[in-house]
Amino acid sequence: MLYLVRMDVDIPDAVGLEEADALKAREKAYSQELQRGGEWVGIWRVVGEYANYSLFDVDSHDRLHEILSNLPLFPYMTIQVTALATHPSAIG
Amino acid sequence: MLYLVRMDVDIPDAVGLEEADALKAREKAYSQELQRGGEWVGIWRVVGEYANYSLFDVDSHDRLHEILSNLPLFPYMTIQVTALATHPSAIG
Amino acid sequence: MLYLVRMDVDIPDAVGLEEADALKAREKAYSQELQRGGEWVGIWRVVGEYANYSLFDVDSHDRLHEILSNLPLFPYMTIQVTALATHPSAIG
Amino acid sequence: MLYLVRMDVDIPDAVGLEEADALKAREKAYSQELQRGGEWVGIWRVVGEYANYSLFDVDSHDRLHEILSNLPLFPYMTIQVTALATHPSAIG
Amino acid sequence: MLYLVRMDVDIPDAVGLEEADALKAREKAYSQELQRGGEWVGIWRVVGEYANYSLFDVDSHDRLHEILSNLPLFPYMTIQVTALATHPSAIG
Amino acid sequence: MLYLVRMDVDIPDAVGLEEADALKAREKAYSQELQRGGEWVGIWRVVGEYANYSLFDVDSHDRLHEILSNLPLFPYMTIQVTALATHPSAIG
Amino acid sequence: MLYLVRMDVDIPDAVGLEEADALKAREKAYSQELQRGGEWVGIWRVVGEYANYSLFDVDSHDRLHEILSNLPLFPYMTIQVTALATHPSAIG
Amino acid sequence: MLYLVRMDVDIPDAVGLEEADALKAREKAYSQELQRGGEWVGIWRVVGEYANYSLFDVDSHDRLHEILSNLPLFPYMTIQVTALATHPSAIG
Amino acid sequence: MLYLVRMDVDIPDAVGLEEADALKAREKAYSQELQRGGEWVGIWRVVGEYANYSLFDVDSHDRLHEILSNLPLFPYMTIQVTALATHPSAIG
Amino acid sequence: MLYLVRMDVDIPDAVGLEEADALKAREKAYSQELQRGGEWVGIWRVVGEYANYSLFDVDSHDRLHEILSNLPLFPYMTIQVTALATHPSAIG
Repeated sequence: MLYLVRMDVDIPDAVGLEEADALKAREKAYSQELQRGGEWVGIWRVVGEYANYSLFDVDSHDRLHEILSNLPLFPYMTIQVTALATHPSAIG
Repeated sequence: MLYLVRMDVDIPDAVGLEEADALKAREKAYSQELQRGGEWVGIWRVVGEYANYSLFDVDSHDRLHEILSNLPLFPYMTIQVTALATHPSAIG
Repeated sequence: MLYLVRMDVDIPDAVGLEEADALKAREKAYSQELQRGGEWVGIWRVVGEYANYSLFDVDSHDRLHEILSNLPLFPYMTIQVTALATHPSAIG
Repeated sequence: MLYLVRMDVDIPDAVGLEEADALKAREKAYSQELQRGGEWVGIWRVVGEYANYSLFDVDSHDRLHEILSNLPLFPYMTIQVTALATHPSAIG
Repeated sequence: MLYLVRMDVDIPDAVGLEEADALKAREKAYSQELQRGGEWVGIWRVVGEYANYSLFDVDSHDRLHEILSNLPLFPYMTIQVTALATHPSAIG
Repeated sequence: MLYLVRMDVDIPDAVGLEEADALKAREKAYSQELQRGGEWVGIWRVVGEYANYSLFDVDSHDRLHEILSNLPLFPYMTIQVTALATHPSAIG
Repeated sequence: MLYLVRMDVDIPDAVGLEEADALKAREKAYSQELQRGGEWVGIWRVVGEYANYSLFDVDSHDRLHEILSNLPLFPYMTIQVTALATHPSAIG
Repeated sequence: MLYLVRMDVDIPDAVGLEEADALKAREKAYSQELQRGGEWVGIWRVVGEYANYSLFDVDSHDRLHEILSNLPLFPYMTIQVTALATHPSAIG
Repeated sequence: MLYLVRMDVDIPDAVGLEEADALKAREKAYSQELQRGGEWVGIWRVVGEYANYSLFDVDSHDRLHEILSNLPLFPYMTIQVTALATHPSAIG
Repeated sequence: MLYLVRMDVDIPDAVGLEEADALKAREKAYSQELQRGGEWVGIWRVVGEYANYSLFDVDSHDRLHEILSNLPLFPYMTIQVTALATHPSAIG
């Protein structure tokens, strides 16, 4: 099932550059593994913002929450989840 | 270039069922032709709402506006456009 | 899978009382059948508003959209869907 | 009487991981006791967010406020309470 | 139990002056009867707006919804209900 | 003249528990004195939130601002003031 | 006492030009009489919008509501009232 | 002086296509004359929306309001005006 | 030219009482000088809030920005500026 | 292609004046270089706010994100990007 997820990231200064970079590196590896696994279908940067839109294809709400809540940057994220159904015009 | 577009549709009752159905049929054909052409990359229904999220890959703002403003249902739509850049984690 | 759905209803005067009552009767029958079937787990009235919160347990986004978009009152509804995952504190 | 309650949790970094975990453990025990007692009817995680929707069945506003304001995480919560009445379509 | 209720009224022109006045007269009588009965504790006009704040003291959510949904002007109202608990500083 | 006032309180952790308790004690004494004096007509807790609705009956805007801005917790409050006029349906 | 009032006007097309012009003429006369009387201290047009900010100096909430609710254009207005107190920096 | 102005246009169906087209033609001529005159510095279409951002360089608020309120489509516009000052980084 | 300006002040605790008082004293002197000069036409306290509405009469956007951005409390302010034109009903 | 970009800047006190001034100097140099290069077409100060509107003319979303995300003040900015198409009334 498909979900559109918007993630806005706001890492407080108090976290420090070094730790922030480490978090971002772990976030990248975590995301790319899920992309290779096919659950994280796509990820795009919102122009001008420290935010992304991502498309997920997973089996259940629980699985999606597991993925999102284990994002290394999760504590510094505001996340909006939209459930997507098949559109009658979609040719895919 | 990629754009994420949300379209919320609200056809006033005054339009009448017959004309509304005709508009929807033209909308479907219009969309499917652009999907086959590759500019309309994906379209998904927002669960529970007369709305969709669509992904477009077009060459310019003007082209996207041309596509959107010529949607048969355009007069009855509220549209939000988000420009998407390449995400550093994207493996695609 | 569980979804929390808020439905706000606003039937324009132009619809007329008779037709509105017919729609409401069909809506009630439609809802009660789905409640008996187990997919529509609960429905409660928001105090003071022509709105309800409902809990659905269905197999997919598509199924939920099918249920909601076929509500007799769907054309006069504003609907918000929230996907619910299992809470770590839930004892149920 | 039924209340739908949304709780959004935001524990500042300054609280520290250890204390945060202790708070969460106390929160879980507090919630599960009330669930066993029947006043906390249900609790579900909002997918992708450190938030839950809960259903309470208590005798009065004062009782609900007592329960909520004594949540260990209450100081770090944004809470929205919606009073729910019996819906005319409900078969339960 | 106490509830603070805000009612914003917007009667469409299409209703016509005569019918609107009739509705308002019935609304006034309906409200004053409940005030005399003690359930409608207070009603005040929001300065500059066709809106009021009212204080209700009723036994249950269902009773409050019954009162509000039977207001003659209910179809033309936007209503917000806030459940009020006893305040620790209240001397009353 | 009557004013409805909503006060949302948010005391930052940095204030410390001891000082916060001292502030709350002073706030309670300050409020109760004004209640006894008749200017602070009523105070109720918003269920589930560190917020209250209060009704004031004072002679002027300046007097109300004097009362509110001298609340011990004023620096940690978000306050909304609504001027209330006599409602044509009010029987009081 | 001083009040800042913002008035946004939206006269539906259905009212018709002639009646709208008549309403506006009556509104202008009504306003100018109150300005001459000193209660309507100032009125300014919000640039680019069919809206104004006005400053009123009246004796009570009831008086201000009486003035505003008897504006010929009142049925087509959205009004926001802000109570103004003396500012400690004001030299006036 | 520079102003950034956003204009969102919403022409109700009741206006009819012919009259709408006539309004749009008059709007275009009106705008182009002001562009040639130098007061209307720039006008751009918001992609996907019946809205534009325009830059005006005029001598006073009154002049800008005169220009905007005489737009043929003014009755069907929602307009937001932002006053722009010289930016310290601007090299122009 | 007239501008209505709303200023909401929020001085973080970290600034310390002494420095805050010094800032407020400088702010008062700064404002009173401009009031005497005639550019700061009026300043009023929003009842119940650490905010004011002010009326400015200055020659240009740049001048207003110069005045506002040099307010001692500017770093702790949220400011909204509304350009005001002459109202056709104004008798002044 | 044209983009309108609003940038709101909020540098926390914790950054310190010296570092903030250094960031601002680098920001100015960075912006002026892009203005000379023609990609940063215009930049204007929003009167009364630590914010600007800027007009960019760049070849792709990626390029704009590269420019914006490398702004020295980017970590302390809230940015809104609006894609602009050619307006049918534009004479330029």
